[in-house]
Amino acid sequence: MTKGKPLVRILMGSPNDLPVMEEAVKIMEHFKVEYDLTVTSAHRSPERTHQVVASAMDQGIEVFIVGAGGAAHLAGVVASLTTLPVIGVPIDSSSLQGMDALLSTVQMPGGVPVAAMAIGKGGAKNGGILAVQILAIKYPGLAKKMAEYKAAMAKEVEAQAKSSYDKNKNR
Amino acid sequence: MTKGKPLVRILMGSPNDLPVMEEAVKIMEHFKVEYDLTVTSAHRSPERTHQVVASAMDQGIEVFIVGAGGAAHLAGVVASLTTLPVIGVPIDSSSLQGMDALLSTVQMPGGVPVAAMAIGKGGAKNGGILAVQILAIKYPGLAKKMAEYKAAMAKEVEAQAKSSYDKNKNR
Amino acid sequence: MTKGKPLVRILMGSPNDLPVMEEAVKIMEHFKVEYDLTVTSAHRSPERTHQVVASAMDQGIEVFIVGAGGAAHLAGVVASLTTLPVIGVPIDSSSLQGMDALLSTVQMPGGVPVAAMAIGKGGAKNGGILAVQILAIKYPGLAKKMAEYKAAMAKEVEAQAKSSYDKNKNR
Amino acid sequence: MTKGKPLVRILMGSPNDLPVMEEAVKIMEHFKVEYDLTVTSAHRSPERTHQVVASAMDQGIEVFIVGAGGAAHLAGVVASLTTLPVIGVPIDSSSLQGMDALLSTVQMPGGVPVAAMAIGKGGAKNGGILAVQILAIKYPGLAKKMAEYKAAMAKEVEAQAKSSYDKNKNR
Amino acid sequence: MTKGKPLVRILMGSPNDLPVMEEAVKIMEHFKVEYDLTVTSAHRSPERTHQVVASAMDQGIEVFIVGAGGAAHLAGVVASLTTLPVIGVPIDSSSLQGMDALLSTVQMPGGVPVAAMAIGKGGAKNGGILAVQILAIKYPGLAKKMAEYKAAMAKEVEAQAKSSYDKNKNR
Amino acid sequence: MTKGKPLVRILMGSPNDLPVMEEAVKIMEHFKVEYDLTVTSAHRSPERTHQVVASAMDQGIEVFIVGAGGAAHLAGVVASLTTLPVIGVPIDSSSLQGMDALLSTVQMPGGVPVAAMAIGKGGAKNGGILAVQILAIKYPGLAKKMAEYKAAMAKEVEAQAKSSYDKNKNR
Amino acid sequence: MTKGKPLVRILMGSPNDLPVMEEAVKIMEHFKVEYDLTVTSAHRSPERTHQVVASAMDQGIEVFIVGAGGAAHLAGVVASLTTLPVIGVPIDSSSLQGMDALLSTVQMPGGVPVAAMAIGKGGAKNGGILAVQILAIKYPGLAKKMAEYKAAMAKEVEAQAKSSYDKNKNR
Amino acid sequence: MTKGKPLVRILMGSPNDLPVMEEAVKIMEHFKVEYDLTVTSAHRSPERTHQVVASAMDQGIEVFIVGAGGAAHLAGVVASLTTLPVIGVPIDSSSLQGMDALLSTVQMPGGVPVAAMAIGKGGAKNGGILAVQILAIKYPGLAKKMAEYKAAMAKEVEAQAKSSYDKNKNR
Repeated sequence: MTKGKPLVRILMGSPNDLPVMEEAVKIMEHFKVEYDLTVTSAHRSPERTHQVVASAMDQGIEVFIVGAGGAAHLAGVVASLTTLPVIGVPIDSSSLQGMDALLSTVQMPGGVPVAAMAIGKGGAKNGGILAVQILAIKYPGLAKKMAEYKAAMAKEVEAQAKSSYDKNKNR
Repeated sequence: MTKGKPLVRILMGSPNDLPVMEEAVKIMEHFKVEYDLTVTSAHRSPERTHQVVASAMDQGIEVFIVGAGGAAHLAGVVASLTTLPVIGVPIDSSSLQGMDALLSTVQMPGGVPVAAMAIGKGGAKNGGILAVQILAIKYPGLAKKMAEYKAAMAKEVEAQAKSSYDKNKNR
Repeated sequence: MTKGKPLVRILMGSPNDLPVMEEAVKIMEHFKVEYDLTVTSAHRSPERTHQVVASAMDQGIEVFIVGAGGAAHLAGVVASLTTLPVIGVPIDSSSLQGMDALLSTVQMPGGVPVAAMAIGKGGAKNGGILAVQILAIKYPGLAKKMAEYKAAMAKEVEAQAKSSYDKNKNR
Repeated sequence: MTKGKPLVRILMGSPNDLPVMEEAVKIMEHFKVEYDLTVTSAHRSPERTHQVVASAMDQGIEVFIVGAGGAAHLAGVVASLTTLPVIGVPIDSSSLQGMDALLSTVQMPGGVPVAAMAIGKGGAKNGGILAVQILAIKYPGLAKKMAEYKAAMAKEVEAQAKSSYDKNKNR
Repeated sequence: MTKGKPLVRILMGSPNDLPVMEEAVKIMEHFKVEYDLTVTSAHRSPERTHQVVASAMDQGIEVFIVGAGGAAHLAGVVASLTTLPVIGVPIDSSSLQGMDALLSTVQMPGGVPVAAMAIGKGGAKNGGILAVQILAIKYPGLAKKMAEYKAAMAKEVEAQAKSSYDKNKNR
Repeated sequence: MTKGKPLVRILMGSPNDLPVMEEAVKIMEHFKVEYDLTVTSAHRSPERTHQVVASAMDQGIEVFIVGAGGAAHLAGVVASLTTLPVIGVPIDSSSLQGMDALLSTVQMPGGVPVAAMAIGKGGAKNGGILAVQILAIKYPGLAKKMAEYKAAMAKEVEAQAKSSYDKNKNR
Repeated sequence: MTKGKPLVRILMGSPNDLPVMEEAVKIMEHFKVEYDLTVTSAHRSPERTHQVVASAMDQGIEVFIVGAGGAAHLAGVVASLTTLPVIGVPIDSSSLQGMDALLSTVQMPGGVPVAAMAIGKGGAKNGGILAVQILAIKYPGLAKKMAEYKAAMAKEVEAQAKSSYDKNKNR
Repeated sequence: MTKGKPLVRILMGSPNDLPVMEEAVKIMEHFKVEYDLTVTSAHRSPERTHQVVASAMDQGIEVFIVGAGGAAHLAGVVASLTTLPVIGVPIDSSSLQGMDALLSTVQMPGGVPVAAMAIGKGGAKNGGILAVQILAIKYPGLAKKMAEYKAAMAKEVEAQAKSSYDKNKNR
């Protein structure tokens, strides 16, 4: 399934967004889902944005993960140009703590959905996981891996519980 | 693909949410995607919520659409219990205009994504469309229909443009 | 100057926005500035949006006034496609009272300005006035009319003051 | 009353919440109320959460204090699974300064209350105090200690007043 | 336990708050918990407020439920004057939709907790339920009734589910 | 003291603000404090605003009460032009429920205070009361009346308490 | 007028508020207005609060300046206990940046005004200035000094303008 | 066109705003548009503000760019005094992250527009660009330069894309 042809395209509005969007990249790599990643701005490079979306379907892309801050239009613009699922990650890059990016990403009009994630790194990580969950409907191997991932996560909480207990006891 | 076995499960936290969530139902019916729909509360009926989620995968469900208002935990609770994609629709049912439902739905911790839609009817409609977009990755027939839907939407804007022009001219 | 060739293009994201954007139209008519007006959606009709912007300069348009609600991307998308001044009017069309539209309109990234107005009818009216103020730099006749308009506005306040005084006295 | 069998169960959604929730621990220790403390996530470890709540009543627990950040569902999920009083402490762990955690904690639907405290350390301290106040209805010894605590607090303000006066005088 | 001597004192800042606070009254009556109810304002009648709180303990009151809107200080003032548990219900009585009342109620300083409920009627109902949950620690009869109440609530959701299913089917 | 020469000048930015500002007028009339009242806009009639402020001191005015909505600059502009105390009443006249007016009124820079009241009618009433409290420092007759007013207010709460009790009993 | 008997009482809810409230102190000292200053908490030391307010009038106090953070009830509680003008300074001491303190201070119910200032140091400075403006109605010497202060402020802006010009030129 | 006589007047409310407003200055210098820059406060130096605006038209100024924080009235006051286009830059200088400055700048009443930019440096940069876009209607040389600027911006995104790709690859 993932022999070199990317299934997921990760876009971000500015190179400053890379430290956030790398959380999505890590998920791609954990699940061995092929992806590509680039920078394009809804506002500063509209033609480039058009190209990276328009070319996606023919290139075999099946899901977009899009991060942007401020008046975060990038995910919405991508969604206007494709029928593939578009996941939007609001990024906290203005003085308004990402509330502007969240509302610009989530309050899409009826007809053109963007799947909004939480603001910042947790949202980017979840963007990656949701992309895998979407692909897992079609690719059974991913569904199995995702079930293992979820089980491991619950295990990790138990480990954290033990460690916190010890820390509190030894205060 | 959709001969009677539902692919999409629509959940809502209260029967008052039905007028909103019917927008998702209409999309299911437009695209002839089989779905089922029920009420369950994260807080008032936690066991029932557990059951309708736990049983989903074996029943062939592939996507959840979940609407809730106030401290809208239902989509998050569903997401905690499944590896299927969960779409969350915040509903404006308190004095805070749905801002509480939006933040409770979208600000999920890393590891457990919910795909948040806009607050209210537009969000429920988009929840339906996103569910179809997700299924369309696997079911090519849906992809074709979705492309037609998108084209029709653009046509409709042209018709609206003409009608608005006339209305303004005849003021 | 304004013999039939429009200088101002008024765009709105939905026909529902017409009652708001008519306030800008009234200003155009008061100042006898030629304009045209149409509906186009950043998300539902991206190609149409591209066309109505791309064609503008050759058609002699000098200013855009753009109204939109929710995740109001339309003004930003227009600004990404032109070097003409773009005035954005946030419209209160979701449960969030236009705060989503305001932030989506005003928080544009460095490089691509949108001149944001107040939410709603007052903002649409001011969008019209700002368009005239911009044109008045080039067309001295408009500057003179604008000065008269401003003087009349101050006069009107005096009349309102008298009427309020009478109303209070006669309580 | 407090010979080794805990009356209060302190839960938190992440080990990162420990520095906040320790404020509740300090109150337990001040009043010599037996407690236990663990980490469990509403979203990442739903079964574990179910267990730590379901087992509580038989173990003699009488009050829960629950801290969580972001889409803070943990207190609500606990409240859905018990009839014991549940105190919720919103934690500031996202870019939204705890406003998301506050609304997710406090805006519970009719039928399933969570007693919301202030965001952060002050809230965790107050969660501890409220737990003691609740227990004090049943255990008269605690009521007496609480009255002393309150009197000491007023005394402390007088000392602070003197010290502030001196600081200001010596500026 | 509840033979005529009230255990719960319900206070509200204004007679306009009665329609909201009646939701707490209904819970008292459902659980047959004796209560009394009065109006007193933190700001307009500070002495009266002092009296209704100071007299409470000797009269056998064990829990306060306090509703107020705007700069909702009443619950905090009550909490400053007693060591009994104080439940605060923010009421939406200004143009700010109860956000002012919520923050004034919940953001109490360390040392003086108020158990904040959701804004409005749901919050008042939950204030009643929390009061019963608190009393149930001491009065086993109430604990049993509360368990029945919770079970009935889950049953009611099932009935709602069936009714919603029918409504949707018959659209 | 109040034989026909006004001590208080009430200003409002628009005649639409009169129903709100009449609450201040009622207080003036209750305390028999001479006042005058007019409309002037910080933005639409800056010269008129300058005049009604500049002339105030010589005319014996001692306090301003100023109401405005939206980007409510009027109180701040008045404060920039006088050394008399300026009381600002934010008015809810935009889609943002008066939050814009509140922040525009209260967040004045160091050096030029405006005494901000609550949004709307309660704020206008309080603007009147604060004006009387300020004047009462100089005019002992007003201080006495204000003490009576405060006592009557506490009495009124007692009456409200009785009436609410009866209403609840007779449900 | 100010020979040792304080006219202004400065209160703050916590010794942590001293660095903010010192801005009010500096104004008192600049204008040589006698003041006293102490810490008292609306919630932790209600009796002390009652005393410092109840004793004020007899001691010759004519204005209160009150700073508090979080659910900032102190100014409101002071206002409930006096007919003297009460100036409230919201302090940014929680994760909500002082928005909680602002709303708790400004949204007072009709009948009991608090003159709210901006959040933080600028607000404390302005609290001092407003206190002087209020006293200046009665004490003509202060009015004259206030006029000089205002003139000096305008002069200072001119100096700042020159310095900024130079800084920009020399970039 | 720009031989020494300024076309753009940049104003700011405080010298602390210079680091933000320099972003507008850089744009002026990039496009070789003559400008002048000064500090004036709407509140602390109202006469000076009046002068720098009243003198502008005769001096050949065609656009204002105005930055201010807090209750940011400066742009609105400038707009009340001129018929030239006024661009407002909200500055984040209080604890409210510029939300106060944004609302004070953008929510202008019908009749007196301010073209609001984003909060902070990006907004100041865009203020400069919008000023150039406005002037470009009249001065064709600027229109050509602006087209080049826009093209360069799109190019820069491509370079950023390449660099981000490399950074991600080399993690």
